Amino acid sequence: MDATSKVSVAKYGGGIVSSVEDIIAREYALTIILDGDELITLLCTPQNLEYLAVGFLVSESIIADRKDVKNIRVFEDKGIVELETTKSSTLAKKLYGKRTMTTGCGKGATFYNAVDSLSCKIVDSDMKVYAQDILELMRKFNKCSDLFTNTGGVHSACLCTDKEFLLFHEDIGRHNALDKIIGEAVTKGIELTDKLILTTGRISSEILIKAAKRGIPVIVSRSAPTDLAVELANELGVTVIGFARGARMNIYSKKERIVY
Amino acid sequence: MDATSKVSVAKYGGGIVSSVEDIIAREYALTIILDGDELITLLCTPQNLEYLAVGFLVSESIIADRKDVKNIRVFEDKGIVELETTKSSTLAKKLYGKRTMTTGCGKGATFYNAVDSLSCKIVDSDMKVYAQDILELMRKFNKCSDLFTNTGGVHSACLCTDKEFLLFHEDIGRHNALDKIIGEAVTKGIELTDKLILTTGRISSEILIKAAKRGIPVIVSRSAPTDLAVELANELGVTVIGFARGARMNIYSKKERIVY
Repeated sequence: MDATSKVSVAKYGGGIVSSVEDIIAREYALTIILDGDELITLLCTPQNLEYLAVGFLVSESIIADRKDVKNIRVFEDKGIVELETTKSSTLAKKLYGKRTMTTGCGKGATFYNAVDSLSCKIVDSDMKVYAQDILELMRKFNKCSDLFTNTGGVHSACLCTDKEFLLFHEDIGRHNALDKIIGEAVTKGIELTDKLILTTGRISSEILIKAAKRGIPVIVSRSAPTDLAVELANELGVTVIGFARGARMNIYSKKERIVY
Repeated sequence: MDATSKVSVAKYGGGIVSSVEDIIAREYALTIILDGDELITLLCTPQNLEYLAVGFLVSESIIADRKDVKNIRVFEDKGIVELETTKSSTLAKKLYGKRTMTTGCGKGATFYNAVDSLSCKIVDSDMKVYAQDILELMRKFNKCSDLFTNTGGVHSACLCTDKEFLLFHEDIGRHNALDKIIGEAVTKGIELTDKLILTTGRISSEILIKAAKRGIPVIVSRSAPTDLAVELANELGVTVIGFARGARMNIYSKKERIVY
């Protein structure tokens, strides 16, 4: 399905109004049916829906790996993806969305989700990245998002080494874009513990936790992080970089991974 | 609680790195306890939490009005808001988050949420607004968001007439900013059916539905709408305006409300 739709727009500018056809981002409702039960409806860009579903389940700790999925069927016209698993976490399903305020990893960061606090582990990668390489990656990344250029309405995420892009996805939701990356990576067996994530979206706690759970050591955004994301990043050993634009960037946590 | 936190940041630019203290947006987990049951945890900016809770419940059709809430208590340090209601919708609570693909209002727009399709009604306001007034409101709106200026990490929403601002809220989530507006409006008994909403965020279906449910006839954003939001707006009679910046804007639906 196309990621965009055509709509008729009245464009107003300089006192003049004209009717034109314009392209806007498509928003699509995808319901995940897991082993016969409805789990959630995601509002997303209708592309790479298998990766989105697998990535979402992995991010939520409901499955550990692509191997846990026996069958996956996307019914694009119905907005449904059905997954049959060989092994899924009953605890994670049961606790899905449930709150717990708990301190993780013995140091004091606060998780608001029970499963996240259980899945918490320190990212101990000894990866080092040159600051200039990150800025070069971001320059390339900014040029990649054709959908954004056309519609102004989507986020992009990219998985890369310090030199080259490996995976790239776009979605109207910044969480979905990252889940598509994670879904494709686990499907293709790509190691994540020595890679970077680039994102156009803000780095909130949810984005940080998704990346940390897969052992990804560095997240770079052209936008801002939140304080909770930085707190969790310090706790979990993830390097958070924000406002990476042009020749500048801010490093918020685990700063020793960056080489100048 | 402050809407921002101070963090220590390594700023890199022009080959030089320096350590400075910087301000970033606070991200706070607020759990809504409704009549003794945990309903949801919202990640938000920790300000105006009563308005957020009330606005969220109204938006989700769980309560119809502020009068349905007998008691409300915010435990800021625990991240909890407890609400005791005289009347809340058991159906809405039961269907909360449940999917249904249904056509609304006899014309064919697709709702993905059961409660939304039940709450659907046409916005039949005969309000007219001058295009130049909207651009003037947006110029003022863009100047208002101090928190955004300081942190780059929050969204703003405003309720206004065609000439002046009535309510203004900021939040790390664009949905929350709108729910704070709706919560304050229903708390203060402000009529919404002859007002405009201005937002910094994209107009997705969820934003459109929140506004339409309260009978708000016009939504203006400096960002893009999605196709599903425009489809629902056409169906429900809401004027959607996007990319309102400088002297320009795009009108996507119910265009006859705008006067040139």
